[in-house]
Amino acid sequence: MKEVEFYFDVGSPAAYLAWTQLPRIAQETGASLVFRPMLLGGVFQATGNHSPMQVPAKGRYVMADLERFAHRYGVAFRHNPFFPINTLALMRGAIGLQMRDEARMAPYADAVFRAIWVEGLDMGEPQVVGAVLQRAGFDPQALFALASEPEVKERLKAATQEAVARGVFGAPTFFVGSQMYWGQDRLDFVKEALQ
Amino acid sequence: MKEVEFYFDVGSPAAYLAWTQLPRIAQETGASLVFRPMLLGGVFQATGNHSPMQVPAKGRYVMADLERFAHRYGVAFRHNPFFPINTLALMRGAIGLQMRDEARMAPYADAVFRAIWVEGLDMGEPQVVGAVLQRAGFDPQALFALASEPEVKERLKAATQEAVARGVFGAPTFFVGSQMYWGQDRLDFVKEALQ
Repeated sequence: MKEVEFYFDVGSPAAYLAWTQLPRIAQETGASLVFRPMLLGGVFQATGNHSPMQVPAKGRYVMADLERFAHRYGVAFRHNPFFPINTLALMRGAIGLQMRDEARMAPYADAVFRAIWVEGLDMGEPQVVGAVLQRAGFDPQALFALASEPEVKERLKAATQEAVARGVFGAPTFFVGSQMYWGQDRLDFVKEALQ
Repeated sequence: MKEVEFYFDVGSPAAYLAWTQLPRIAQETGASLVFRPMLLGGVFQATGNHSPMQVPAKGRYVMADLERFAHRYGVAFRHNPFFPINTLALMRGAIGLQMRDEARMAPYADAVFRAIWVEGLDMGEPQVVGAVLQRAGFDPQALFALASEPEVKERLKAATQEAVARGVFGAPTFFVGSQMYWGQDRLDFVKEALQ
């Protein structure tokens, strides 16, 4: 069975753009999509990498570049005015769902990605998160409780360390077998590898 | 008249890969290729950016990524064992030729790019540079003399500052009008902009 692994953090605009394309690519190539939630801040800390936004000229370019890809893909995208967002609770929620109710990972990721990168909401605010989750058919209180379970917290830490051990240094990152691809702009290579 | 501006430093493997494709793209789209030699180290210093090689996990990935593109393009490419090379004298030579004998810029860039990124030579060594230039039909002593003229040194500094002022933070960078594109992996966007 062909698989594509998707290492992501909902705070990455490039991961959002990948998310708008990857399910279709998986479907077209008959591959299953394996979610690999991780904390991008932890990956940066462990690898010595950092956000392109930390270099002002690069940050400005990267936003224009993402807009070009959004236009090419024909998808909605806007820069989040609250960027960078602390995604710790959101990614704990993602990995908690993966542990307990895996079928709901995709709708969760979709709701959160869109809240941040289409609607421009402040998803660092629990009240905003609660409203977004409720609207998407989740029980916010149950998800908040799940995200604060020690086992869930530990699992996100471990998943982030596993990502780094495999060579991940940024988001999104894809694996097809042992081949690693970094960036939403490498989805053409991912598709080729799956074909 | 359509133009594509090519900001480059011969020490950048991605700039080499761009060089293997850009003349054809310019020809196919009826655009003229404008060389913009710059010193990448100076760009990094001015912008706070740095080589991806400084993050070990990223450096390893970037090399694999460049090899994938070389394979896709069907061009020779190997990592230079003497990387990073101090390209100050080489880029002074490039901009000196542009000032005095512009028609010879392209053969010079081609000879130097190939010596570094196909043959894996130590182009930080004047003797090696001399042999490569001689083989390519240049007078090495005349070029070394040109590269050490104060006016040429100043021109490279000014060109690098101009690049930074336009928003350049890495190599290769292309401009089509006011639109900036960074990376050999954006040549498809460059081609679209020229069409």
